[in-house]
Amino acid sequence: MSYDHIKQEAFEANMQLPRLGLVLFTFGNVSAADRSKGVFAIKPSGVPYEELTPDKMVILDFGANIVEGSLRPSSDTKTHAVLYKQWEEIGGIVHTHSTYATSWAQSLKDIPIYGTTHADYNTVDIPCAPPMDDKMIKGDYEYETGFQIINCFKERGLNYKELEMVLVGSHAPFTWGKNAAKAVHNSAVLEFIAQTALYTEMINPGAARLKEAIRKKHFERKHGPDSYYGQ
Amino acid sequence: MSYDHIKQEAFEANMQLPRLGLVLFTFGNVSAADRSKGVFAIKPSGVPYEELTPDKMVILDFGANIVEGSLRPSSDTKTHAVLYKQWEEIGGIVHTHSTYATSWAQSLKDIPIYGTTHADYNTVDIPCAPPMDDKMIKGDYEYETGFQIINCFKERGLNYKELEMVLVGSHAPFTWGKNAAKAVHNSAVLEFIAQTALYTEMINPGAARLKEAIRKKHFERKHGPDSYYGQ
Amino acid sequence: MSYDHIKQEAFEANMQLPRLGLVLFTFGNVSAADRSKGVFAIKPSGVPYEELTPDKMVILDFGANIVEGSLRPSSDTKTHAVLYKQWEEIGGIVHTHSTYATSWAQSLKDIPIYGTTHADYNTVDIPCAPPMDDKMIKGDYEYETGFQIINCFKERGLNYKELEMVLVGSHAPFTWGKNAAKAVHNSAVLEFIAQTALYTEMINPGAARLKEAIRKKHFERKHGPDSYYGQ
Amino acid sequence: MSYDHIKQEAFEANMQLPRLGLVLFTFGNVSAADRSKGVFAIKPSGVPYEELTPDKMVILDFGANIVEGSLRPSSDTKTHAVLYKQWEEIGGIVHTHSTYATSWAQSLKDIPIYGTTHADYNTVDIPCAPPMDDKMIKGDYEYETGFQIINCFKERGLNYKELEMVLVGSHAPFTWGKNAAKAVHNSAVLEFIAQTALYTEMINPGAARLKEAIRKKHFERKHGPDSYYGQ
Repeated sequence: MSYDHIKQEAFEANMQLPRLGLVLFTFGNVSAADRSKGVFAIKPSGVPYEELTPDKMVILDFGANIVEGSLRPSSDTKTHAVLYKQWEEIGGIVHTHSTYATSWAQSLKDIPIYGTTHADYNTVDIPCAPPMDDKMIKGDYEYETGFQIINCFKERGLNYKELEMVLVGSHAPFTWGKNAAKAVHNSAVLEFIAQTALYTEMINPGAARLKEAIRKKHFERKHGPDSYYGQ
Repeated sequence: MSYDHIKQEAFEANMQLPRLGLVLFTFGNVSAADRSKGVFAIKPSGVPYEELTPDKMVILDFGANIVEGSLRPSSDTKTHAVLYKQWEEIGGIVHTHSTYATSWAQSLKDIPIYGTTHADYNTVDIPCAPPMDDKMIKGDYEYETGFQIINCFKERGLNYKELEMVLVGSHAPFTWGKNAAKAVHNSAVLEFIAQTALYTEMINPGAARLKEAIRKKHFERKHGPDSYYGQ
Repeated sequence: MSYDHIKQEAFEANMQLPRLGLVLFTFGNVSAADRSKGVFAIKPSGVPYEELTPDKMVILDFGANIVEGSLRPSSDTKTHAVLYKQWEEIGGIVHTHSTYATSWAQSLKDIPIYGTTHADYNTVDIPCAPPMDDKMIKGDYEYETGFQIINCFKERGLNYKELEMVLVGSHAPFTWGKNAAKAVHNSAVLEFIAQTALYTEMINPGAARLKEAIRKKHFERKHGPDSYYGQ
Repeated sequence: MSYDHIKQEAFEANMQLPRLGLVLFTFGNVSAADRSKGVFAIKPSGVPYEELTPDKMVILDFGANIVEGSLRPSSDTKTHAVLYKQWEEIGGIVHTHSTYATSWAQSLKDIPIYGTTHADYNTVDIPCAPPMDDKMIKGDYEYETGFQIINCFKERGLNYKELEMVLVGSHAPFTWGKNAAKAVHNSAVLEFIAQTALYTEMINPGAARLKEAIRKKHFERKHGPDSYYGQ
């Protein structure tokens, strides 16, 4: 059984992270899933991007058991596994420590929706999931990180298919999408949203959130049956 | 009837946007008009810059009807069309989501005129047109965006030939000029003005606007019968 | 009489400005003087850096009269001429609109001396010369800009040989040095000082100026009879 | 007796500084030690990175006496020597004036621990050693700088093997590690920590420090017997 296609997909998506300026050293990882086989390919832990090749990707099932690969997978692997298992329509996941999104995560604040670039992707503030309690941290930390994200979405009534990004409080962002390339795209967009939201607040500390009608308009330009963006 | 010259002009101007650091992914578009033929060439919607070629440009008239081209034009096409129709001496238009100008647009604040770089291009604050009312947003949104810009200029008594840039509140900047290259130039200048204005306010929250005599002096160094800048 | 050596020197120094990220488009100019011949070479006005060649440099005397060259010299030429005439030991001058130094100039504030990087170059706050009165602005503006700088130094008792940089209020920085290359070096250093001074104030709004003993120590490491920096 | 291996190591590590965006001109230096021979190789003073070659490195003992090399060593050499002598398990030292870390040093503030990226490297605020008293400054300044760092660690009960970075107040950062490459790595990480800590405070002026359990968890993921990061 060959996993070459998701190894290649995960490899290419991982290589986009340094090109997009989203990672320093090895502070990030991308995975790509094959739903029909119930597995995903993920970056090996701590391997520099310049040494990465498709065959170094590690294959795991959604229970985080290694299926193929001789290297240790990303230390964040269990978070990916939980998200794939719980959210059945995502095909790629990205974790970075991108500068501005990480700063919002460290500040424990949601990123308010201030403009149309944000609304082109979703219609709500980007949520910052709270840090876990000490018991969870000392327990199965990366596994719990996945549930922390999922619970945050449940509590707020958010839909992972309409909002493909989150901040993990004190830590950094995760994004996802139908495949690894889309998940990487979302990481770059989140970084842009995080940067401009900070500048917006610096320019106008009393800046108001985007009005409802524009949120809806811009989101529907790009998503759903009446979308008219792209080819 | 050949539109190759404006396709080429629009193509080259579009390709400047990523080089100047003004766009992420496809968040921007440039058009170039041929006034004698009553048409303009614009970027196709959602096509990555690296896949762009001159023949992919779409030709439309100033009523936004497609004249030539098999791809769907930029989702912002109607805004371009309205501006070309109403402002009869512009030959190129640019829309970007450049970082700093977008942040000012999101903050719903005009960019105050603080320095000579700003006055080299115009003598007033860069206006931020207010967001539209809900009826206009739900109506012909991109068409109304054009009128929102034009009305902002009318209400403030501004001349589009002396001020070639505007912020659309909650959204992002538009710039224009005698041709597409000049419009792109103006987008980069606006981004510089937006960035340094923010820093100026951070350094000195009580910073005063540029005095009238310097505004006039610098603008006239570069424009009008007594200009002495350039060759 | 050949001016090739200063044309070459001015050309090379001008080409450093975009490489060091100190200019957008043509917002900057460098000149190089030959004291023995009483002339300087300066960038032609408005010519893009990518089209610059040594033979396009314009030669002028210290009264700002053109000696050689078919292009119009930089619009800031008279400011250079005044500085060369009044300050007899400088061999190169640079004017840029570099982002952070320009923001300080626009804020009309001196840049406080906060750290050793600053003291490696001089021991005082970087002065911001006040904007001129309206009569001077409407008169021989660029000529007066030179005197505005010189008067600022006189009034504050500053020595142009120990402090090779200044902000012109509302406008942007000028730097100088024994030759054009050193003047460009100083422009990059000033930009670093301007950037870190802003960040220092953001981190600690009550940040104190560098203590006297460290100012002296660092300046003397690099300058004067007891210096021990470099080869 | 050949020192080629540490000359090569110091050379390669020095060349990483401009690549990582940590230095302007010659504002930085790296050394690499050979403990078995009791010597270290360091960058020559004021030599541009583009002119650097392995054989230009200067070899000194831990008393800062030159053992080999015709060029004058970095002006900060005595600081390196003191650290090597006092802290017997470090193999490389880096000094830069990187933008954000230098700004924190100039503000005389420790960098609070706000996130997991910080905790991946150490579990405490990055200390800012206070400026020396005037007598020390006027005395053997670079030698005293080394002791200022060591005393700061002593007074706060910090372990140089668990915390490989420090700010020298009013000046700039120093980092170290088992070898020169690791010390350079730490300089880049410190710069990231310094940048995101500033942004965190801008987003949320009341941001809280990272909770203890996460500090411990992240540090132990990467260090100690139970670490599981990397290969």
